[in-house]
Amino acid sequence: MSGAEPAPRVRLRDVARRAGVAQSTASAVLTGRSEEARIAPATRARVQAAAAELGYRPNLAARNLRSRTSRIIGLVSDAIAAEPYAGEMVRGASAAAVTHGRLLLIAESDGSPSVEDDLVHGMIDRQVDGLIYGCLATRTVTLSAAVRCLPTVLLNCLADPLPGPAVVPDDVDGGREAAAALLAAGHREGIHVVGRRYRNVLAGRRRLRGIRARLAEAGCSVAGLLDCEWTPAEAYASVSALLRRTRPAALICLNDRVAFGAYQALAAAGLRVPDDVSVVGFDDSVMAGWMQPGLSSVALPYHEMGRLAADLLIKEDRHPVVHEIGMLLRHRGSVGAPAPSRA
Amino acid sequence: MSGAEPAPRVRLRDVARRAGVAQSTASAVLTGRSEEARIAPATRARVQAAAAELGYRPNLAARNLRSRTSRIIGLVSDAIAAEPYAGEMVRGASAAAVTHGRLLLIAESDGSPSVEDDLVHGMIDRQVDGLIYGCLATRTVTLSAAVRCLPTVLLNCLADPLPGPAVVPDDVDGGREAAAALLAAGHREGIHVVGRRYRNVLAGRRRLRGIRARLAEAGCSVAGLLDCEWTPAEAYASVSALLRRTRPAALICLNDRVAFGAYQALAAAGLRVPDDVSVVGFDDSVMAGWMQPGLSSVALPYHEMGRLAADLLIKEDRHPVVHEIGMLLRHRGSVGAPAPSRA
Repeated sequence: MSGAEPAPRVRLRDVARRAGVAQSTASAVLTGRSEEARIAPATRARVQAAAAELGYRPNLAARNLRSRTSRIIGLVSDAIAAEPYAGEMVRGASAAAVTHGRLLLIAESDGSPSVEDDLVHGMIDRQVDGLIYGCLATRTVTLSAAVRCLPTVLLNCLADPLPGPAVVPDDVDGGREAAAALLAAGHREGIHVVGRRYRNVLAGRRRLRGIRARLAEAGCSVAGLLDCEWTPAEAYASVSALLRRTRPAALICLNDRVAFGAYQALAAAGLRVPDDVSVVGFDDSVMAGWMQPGLSSVALPYHEMGRLAADLLIKEDRHPVVHEIGMLLRHRGSVGAPAPSRA
Repeated sequence: MSGAEPAPRVRLRDVARRAGVAQSTASAVLTGRSEEARIAPATRARVQAAAAELGYRPNLAARNLRSRTSRIIGLVSDAIAAEPYAGEMVRGASAAAVTHGRLLLIAESDGSPSVEDDLVHGMIDRQVDGLIYGCLATRTVTLSAAVRCLPTVLLNCLADPLPGPAVVPDDVDGGREAAAALLAAGHREGIHVVGRRYRNVLAGRRRLRGIRARLAEAGCSVAGLLDCEWTPAEAYASVSALLRRTRPAALICLNDRVAFGAYQALAAAGLRVPDDVSVVGFDDSVMAGWMQPGLSSVALPYHEMGRLAADLLIKEDRHPVVHEIGMLLRHRGSVGAPAPSRA
């Protein structure tokens, strides 16, 4: 069990003892104040050698008291690390933080305002240099007084007024991408959108706006809108009901889970993707590549969003500007020419 | 733009000024030393009122210097937040940390030893109270000198010697669960295992050991072993090849991605789950509930593992003991009685 005891931390006094100097001398050398403190070059070299031999690491907490920076940034969210793909925002933010010599303190509120308040105060207590305030689904939030105490960048959400920069996906642009892919394959009619009215999530409304705008530019329009929750089971039921009424040429599914359920409904009805019906999804989740045929899906730039949020915070960009990150279609095999009966 | 400036931090001197007392008096009251410092009750009340009015929060960094605790714990991993479901380990650890008044500092090394070393040193510099060292896939690791400087709990990995407690899933037990489900449904033969020899991941070998042991107890054995990577595409190819040679009664897929590919291969061969072939998976990922029929899958207790790792660290349990967390089968619709031709 003795092997389980961690090595004791090397302290300034250990370095001073090894170098045979006063602690104040060692401190002056190791905090870059040799010249002001008139330390002789030989002494300076001896202290530096002792520090290297002992593996001395400066006490950042002590330095923080002087510099008032912890080189830690906080990320508070409702449940961002929960969602399989949204976790990429955390990874992007963490990678950017590490690039700039920062580390990321994370905590989730599960949507509870009182938990969020405790978490933000916990971060203030630990003197984080700033806060990334993130949301699982793009939406408009109301910020607490605690959050407004800190330099803040919003990630995947908006607030009025903005406390600083906000980073969100350009879902309108994403919607245009999805429509453009179908137009390019020759589709002009029978295009249905699946997954409208999903709670108060902004993404769905904005994606639909982009789809309509792009189709209108080509002189077409949406043939039908299917309301359903963004789950495979709901989408399956909704698309199955549609197939009993009509034969769509193409389905734009407002996220990949909806497309997953749509595939199941098409298979159950004996229809092939894309020969009989083309399908487009949103998110470009891992699953999109597993489906047969692979699902063409408009990618959510989660990693890039997380990275930009951390960059803006670290660079102390305080401009209350909304940064919209472009969304690109990842082409796989689910979009084809309209079935011959429609051509 | 002036609205974008965060409110300045309230300092001890602000509280002292508001209460009309010396800074040392305010400090004594706010650090619970009123009695030792002989502060009059009325003065004490005035300081507390001033602190409450101004929203004063004690400077933890200053307290840390005295107490040598930051109330921050670190979580370093290869890519734990990356994998959709493994992210639950981070969530479990974070929730347990918050319960005990700690926050979680996270960073991923992407498997690079030099990056890991920098990250761990960064955490030492920030005086984390201890470290959770996590892995995406269960495996045996070699710990760096930096990690051995800190009180450490291993999460989803093992080391020899152990630096302290380790928390891993009980995959042998999980394998027994999968085999037991098929035995309970009446299966005795034609049970194939899909996904053997997946790199150096311990989980697959341990799951297989449990499967073999449980079948042996019932006087049965594994009919065949299919080697494949744990991806849907590899599993699809592997199971498709099997179906050209023989008709299995049941497939135990060593994770849910493998089961996803197996479903596709069975559907392509015109076989129904579970009427023609029963299927069991491992992980109980979100996807298991989306498949048709729902996949019966042995759950990986990721959230519980993360929570226990944080608990052990915070309670300063330094015993080098391996904590194996039980795995339970989540029953859905993919296991049925053997097809009549076999009954």
